[in-house]
Amino acid sequence: MAYKDEQLHEEKVFKDPVHRYIHVRDQVIWDLIGAKEFQRLRRIKQLGTTYVTFHGAEHSRFNHSLGVYEIVRRILINFENRPNWNQEERLLCLCAALLHDLGHGPFSHSFEKVFKLDHEDYTRAIILGDTEICQILSRISPDFPQKVADVINKTYPDKLVVSLISSQIDADRMDYLQRDAYYTGVSYGHFDMERILRVMRPVEDQVVIKESGMHAVEDYIMSRYQMYWQVYFHPVTRSAEVILSKILHRVKRLYTEGYAFKFEPIHFRSFFEGEVDLQDYLRLDEAVVLFYFQQWAEEDDAILKDLCLRFTNRQLFKYVQYNPNLQMKDWMELYRLFDAVGLDSEYYLVEDSSSDLPYDFYRPGEEEERVPIHLLMPNGDLRELSRQSEIVEAISGKKRTDHKLYFPLDSIEALSDDIPEKKKILEILGR
Amino acid sequence: MAYKDEQLHEEKVFKDPVHRYIHVRDQVIWDLIGAKEFQRLRRIKQLGTTYVTFHGAEHSRFNHSLGVYEIVRRILINFENRPNWNQEERLLCLCAALLHDLGHGPFSHSFEKVFKLDHEDYTRAIILGDTEICQILSRISPDFPQKVADVINKTYPDKLVVSLISSQIDADRMDYLQRDAYYTGVSYGHFDMERILRVMRPVEDQVVIKESGMHAVEDYIMSRYQMYWQVYFHPVTRSAEVILSKILHRVKRLYTEGYAFKFEPIHFRSFFEGEVDLQDYLRLDEAVVLFYFQQWAEEDDAILKDLCLRFTNRQLFKYVQYNPNLQMKDWMELYRLFDAVGLDSEYYLVEDSSSDLPYDFYRPGEEEERVPIHLLMPNGDLRELSRQSEIVEAISGKKRTDHKLYFPLDSIEALSDDIPEKKKILEILGR
Amino acid sequence: MAYKDEQLHEEKVFKDPVHRYIHVRDQVIWDLIGAKEFQRLRRIKQLGTTYVTFHGAEHSRFNHSLGVYEIVRRILINFENRPNWNQEERLLCLCAALLHDLGHGPFSHSFEKVFKLDHEDYTRAIILGDTEICQILSRISPDFPQKVADVINKTYPDKLVVSLISSQIDADRMDYLQRDAYYTGVSYGHFDMERILRVMRPVEDQVVIKESGMHAVEDYIMSRYQMYWQVYFHPVTRSAEVILSKILHRVKRLYTEGYAFKFEPIHFRSFFEGEVDLQDYLRLDEAVVLFYFQQWAEEDDAILKDLCLRFTNRQLFKYVQYNPNLQMKDWMELYRLFDAVGLDSEYYLVEDSSSDLPYDFYRPGEEEERVPIHLLMPNGDLRELSRQSEIVEAISGKKRTDHKLYFPLDSIEALSDDIPEKKKILEILGR
Amino acid sequence: MAYKDEQLHEEKVFKDPVHRYIHVRDQVIWDLIGAKEFQRLRRIKQLGTTYVTFHGAEHSRFNHSLGVYEIVRRILINFENRPNWNQEERLLCLCAALLHDLGHGPFSHSFEKVFKLDHEDYTRAIILGDTEICQILSRISPDFPQKVADVINKTYPDKLVVSLISSQIDADRMDYLQRDAYYTGVSYGHFDMERILRVMRPVEDQVVIKESGMHAVEDYIMSRYQMYWQVYFHPVTRSAEVILSKILHRVKRLYTEGYAFKFEPIHFRSFFEGEVDLQDYLRLDEAVVLFYFQQWAEEDDAILKDLCLRFTNRQLFKYVQYNPNLQMKDWMELYRLFDAVGLDSEYYLVEDSSSDLPYDFYRPGEEEERVPIHLLMPNGDLRELSRQSEIVEAISGKKRTDHKLYFPLDSIEALSDDIPEKKKILEILGR
Repeated sequence: MAYKDEQLHEEKVFKDPVHRYIHVRDQVIWDLIGAKEFQRLRRIKQLGTTYVTFHGAEHSRFNHSLGVYEIVRRILINFENRPNWNQEERLLCLCAALLHDLGHGPFSHSFEKVFKLDHEDYTRAIILGDTEICQILSRISPDFPQKVADVINKTYPDKLVVSLISSQIDADRMDYLQRDAYYTGVSYGHFDMERILRVMRPVEDQVVIKESGMHAVEDYIMSRYQMYWQVYFHPVTRSAEVILSKILHRVKRLYTEGYAFKFEPIHFRSFFEGEVDLQDYLRLDEAVVLFYFQQWAEEDDAILKDLCLRFTNRQLFKYVQYNPNLQMKDWMELYRLFDAVGLDSEYYLVEDSSSDLPYDFYRPGEEEERVPIHLLMPNGDLRELSRQSEIVEAISGKKRTDHKLYFPLDSIEALSDDIPEKKKILEILGR
Repeated sequence: MAYKDEQLHEEKVFKDPVHRYIHVRDQVIWDLIGAKEFQRLRRIKQLGTTYVTFHGAEHSRFNHSLGVYEIVRRILINFENRPNWNQEERLLCLCAALLHDLGHGPFSHSFEKVFKLDHEDYTRAIILGDTEICQILSRISPDFPQKVADVINKTYPDKLVVSLISSQIDADRMDYLQRDAYYTGVSYGHFDMERILRVMRPVEDQVVIKESGMHAVEDYIMSRYQMYWQVYFHPVTRSAEVILSKILHRVKRLYTEGYAFKFEPIHFRSFFEGEVDLQDYLRLDEAVVLFYFQQWAEEDDAILKDLCLRFTNRQLFKYVQYNPNLQMKDWMELYRLFDAVGLDSEYYLVEDSSSDLPYDFYRPGEEEERVPIHLLMPNGDLRELSRQSEIVEAISGKKRTDHKLYFPLDSIEALSDDIPEKKKILEILGR
Repeated sequence: MAYKDEQLHEEKVFKDPVHRYIHVRDQVIWDLIGAKEFQRLRRIKQLGTTYVTFHGAEHSRFNHSLGVYEIVRRILINFENRPNWNQEERLLCLCAALLHDLGHGPFSHSFEKVFKLDHEDYTRAIILGDTEICQILSRISPDFPQKVADVINKTYPDKLVVSLISSQIDADRMDYLQRDAYYTGVSYGHFDMERILRVMRPVEDQVVIKESGMHAVEDYIMSRYQMYWQVYFHPVTRSAEVILSKILHRVKRLYTEGYAFKFEPIHFRSFFEGEVDLQDYLRLDEAVVLFYFQQWAEEDDAILKDLCLRFTNRQLFKYVQYNPNLQMKDWMELYRLFDAVGLDSEYYLVEDSSSDLPYDFYRPGEEEERVPIHLLMPNGDLRELSRQSEIVEAISGKKRTDHKLYFPLDSIEALSDDIPEKKKILEILGR
Repeated sequence: MAYKDEQLHEEKVFKDPVHRYIHVRDQVIWDLIGAKEFQRLRRIKQLGTTYVTFHGAEHSRFNHSLGVYEIVRRILINFENRPNWNQEERLLCLCAALLHDLGHGPFSHSFEKVFKLDHEDYTRAIILGDTEICQILSRISPDFPQKVADVINKTYPDKLVVSLISSQIDADRMDYLQRDAYYTGVSYGHFDMERILRVMRPVEDQVVIKESGMHAVEDYIMSRYQMYWQVYFHPVTRSAEVILSKILHRVKRLYTEGYAFKFEPIHFRSFFEGEVDLQDYLRLDEAVVLFYFQQWAEEDDAILKDLCLRFTNRQLFKYVQYNPNLQMKDWMELYRLFDAVGLDSEYYLVEDSSSDLPYDFYRPGEEEERVPIHLLMPNGDLRELSRQSEIVEAISGKKRTDHKLYFPLDSIEALSDDIPEKKKILEILGR
């Protein structure tokens, strides 16, 4: 059964710096974009704290969500009338693309870690719950919200549909690499998406790439690699993220210990207590978080106050490359020294790691399986990318990890030279 | 006397999407950027409510301020060793460029109108007050903060210095046209800045343009014209601005009338009472405003609640071209009808005008004099731009104005068809 | 009757720097591109002598012809299923777009002037003659070549079809403005073509523009204005063109006078004699012309030799703004002086004018009528552009003309100071 | 001793699509650009036959030479006042950069192979011979031409100077990757040159890269890799090159055998006889070659005629991946079959290989040593790039080779099906 797919009287467009125009012809897409849960994405930055490093990276998840939708729309124009493609899945794909990040909150990574949340649960909850989004989707058919949720959750039976949204070369990744490159202004992130879209072919349970487009895919994978190390894992951004996490830790601890806040953290209460209902979750946008950080900068707790001022005024921690071979003795010593000079090592000496696997082929049984990219050879066979591309073969499966140690150099340097630990700390840190 | 101009050990750069890199070599510039009053500009959008129309326009005033600094830096490299240029003014120009928008608050235009503020007063106050900015500037010389303020205030004696920051073709305009075009993604806003910078010459009390660069200037003026009408005065943006103003009006009225807020608007109190001190002003960033709008959406006052929901969820007013020839009778009638159906016309029927004068030459004695652009002719004479350029001559002095009437079409349409006024309202509005 | 429109098994693309990809699905288009008369366009520069000024402008007419085809292809995708549009004209439009410049020869303007040719006659002759092009077109239907020729000749009955190729905002102009801007590297020539294509509507006998796209059209008209004056009429380019014309004049004169060429100009014979048949015309590409210029640089005739060396080695003439008010006496004097010092004024003192009318509305009865651009207003009316756009109104109908006088300054300066005429010449020329 | 370095009264600029502007301040650079031997580079395409595949690639070596000059100019601005850098070498570097490709002829690779020439010998000959170039260089100092030639020849004692022009990350490569990407329109070829220039440091005998710029260098190496395989070795381009070589072979053979040409190949005579003097070499530009190809298309020799028509009208050979494991028997058979059906296998069955080594570190003693790229580590040490970059390590030293077999499929298909060899040929070729 085809979905009830009402068309707008006239196509609407959004001007988009990355894809030039985003085209909307379906009433349901138009209505979803107007829904308040979707508009909320305007109040959540796509790249969290990255703006402290790349000042241009102030774009929101609203931006990116429209972009993913547009890419899927263009892929599907190409799929029309191709074998293996069921045109009735069109609207489902578009909705899933548009809504795939709907459950993101502000500074998601830190919030998820500290409060043990998963934004994907909230995406599902918004799509299926008592929301404008769910009402709009239900107009298509009563089970449509569930289908959209299944696609995003990767449990939808038609894996071809799933792979448009979630694979190693999906619309999500293609949008964010280009978009984040555009807003940060870095020269990485360029690849020939138009060509990739042209060589994508639906094949049973996945989207594959015609072999003639292999080089465009190589370029995309290299872009991805560069964006990860140059932008996403930038140590200055990580430093802001470290501070943000520690703020959340601290405020949660204070709350648990019954600290008397000057300004009651009502928006956070359910987060602290581990029972966040949907409405509480939706209320907590980036403005709310930044508002609280400003309030907490006036609290009496010295650690909370200091961390909030640091975050707000961008007085970040410095870092050194963490040497995992550092003798355990030295290591324990460093913690001890920090505590000794009054810098609570729980908050002021922080290890942080980033790692990336630029591309990996399928290794059944491993923890997090990643569906590989397949090339469609001229003779009709499929061939896993790294078997055909020397450049991808060279880097595939190579996990690169980076460990760093973050600390407030300014606070240490501000210590009196008479304090004997000061010199030792700076020595161990190699400063 | 040359200023004490300490250099960084190594040049620092910011990656910038518009100018590629922003280069900093002076310690004082580096420190100013790090000051908390400057970092605050990250929490204020450059284009206010424009993001509701152009979703890419989420960039902050921090972005733009760095850009203006960079343009002035490049102009001054070109000025070095030229006659009429006093290299000792270099650092003053750079600081004024960087700080010229420091006093902007969130959604400046509406705030200024409703609360009778002037962001320029606050720029001055931050530069001269008890701030990190003032401390840093004072390290150059005790009178340096005052000089910077004077340049921004256009009262500095050396008008050449002033014209770099404030003229019809200053670094401010050149940055924002390009930057706003970049982030919105529109194709207007391109002009050959590199060429304009190359043909700028310091001449006594102003910066002039070598005649051979005239066409690049024409292109800049056309860009300006297009950006005004396509982006800055976009009616959807204006609609959001109209709602924002009405929220501020309403909340101020409620406060004055002693309304019992569920959530005390402590951050706004001094604004309501007309006595905003610097610290109150600095606290009020965009996060704080959006936080309150979320709170007020849960107040009992129906108008405040409705307007805040509209703003937050982007349920904007529609508009019609306002016909100034509409008979006064009809006009009064419309107000009456709105009130009759329960839509308080003070908040729900709003006139708004935009107007622009793309370029004007000097007309002494007129209200707001605009210094014209002068060309430096091959024979050394100066010639006012519109006398040389036919295209500029054609548009110069032509003020264009646009009047629109904003109203909540959704609310009117939601009225029962039994209400006789409904039909009349829609008729007069031509819907 | 629909044309016989065979489709390629798989779409073919050309990588194009301006439109990213040029898409071909029709067998006939593919075959036309492969025809030798079309491949010949690779050997003719799009901008003639402009490369002497803008070194990037070395692109060929082949480039541009593909671009015009692609734009029309995109317009027609938008026209599909619209009222007033007859989809059966699709292939005719595409062929006419692709072939509209087929008759251009090398350095067309000079050749046409000196040898009294019209490239449009040759376009027609190639389409209708004994050529691969005509054979391919005839496969569609016997009268198809004639139809294509009629469209290009503007005599085809369906004026809507004609206006796609020839109007004030046709695919031809839209391609060359962007393409020439791209290759020269100038920053003019940008306008939002994607938007213009989206707002084009077929209306009876013309293509009109939805009023909401007016600003994009304004931008296009300004681009056109800037490209004319910054690129197309650049005086250095004109100088090369002047020399080129004079070479052709000289060689024709010598031939007529029975001069004994060291190297027989066999390729030019029919041009000199005024009877150029199609095969002779097709043989004369740019390589042939440049080859002869190299040969002629070794002839004994001093003028021919000098002019050919000047052209080949870019030793161009200098110029002064020609003052039409110069007294006739001075003027005659200048000619006399040139001849007196041995610089034959027929070849070495050359007047040249350029003029442009950026946009004009219809003035019935005037020499060369230009169909104006019409806007489609929201109420369905048509409105001539300059009545709606203030910026276009300001410049419309304003013809701008530029007169210059070209001469070999180097030869004059090389004269002995003892020759009394030298000083006088330099004086009159203001050097 | 500093060179006599006369400055232009006012800086001159060339508009360049790749570097925006090319700036000239030195009289000698200005004069070199105007010299006829340099202007000749306008008549030689940068990418030879690539335009048959990428129609935008019609740019000349003149273009590229200016670009290399400009990059070196920018590097040297950065080097000024740095340790290890001798500012007196500035002008030498600029001249060597500008002139490094001066000896290229039309379609260099084929000409060099067929006629056993080396364009580097001619570069040297032009710089040191009786030319305008040599005269201009000699004005600096009598030994200056020799120095320039030595730098280009890599024999100049200061290896730092040499490495600016010839290394794995020199100005030559940086210009052509970007320039060829720009004109072809491919999306490869982007890297952050501005950043690379900023992190280049002169260190004794080479230019090294600050370690913080490593990722920009990785990006450059990947660009290089992609450009080689996507553009430079494109099989369609190779096909045109194959035909071109065979034309030259054929015409040389005919000449040697005393064939009576209808049109005497006077410009080629010295090439055929193996004694090409400088003036003959300089005369042979691309126009001359194309002129002869047109003439030869009318000769009686069937092979020469056919090949010339193929080249001129782009009727290229098709290709199959050459299988080196094909049994020798089949292989010999194919040659026999071609000859049997009247397709002279010497001209119509052509093997062609391309291979590339994207990056290699120094292996002393190997045939063609390639100086590796060194990173300057924060502690001042140098470190070979592939030891620091995993991505470069992964691809370094991996030579990739591609073998193809070219043949005229159209001619084979045109054979009568009665000819038994036809089927066999198509079978072996897998068509």
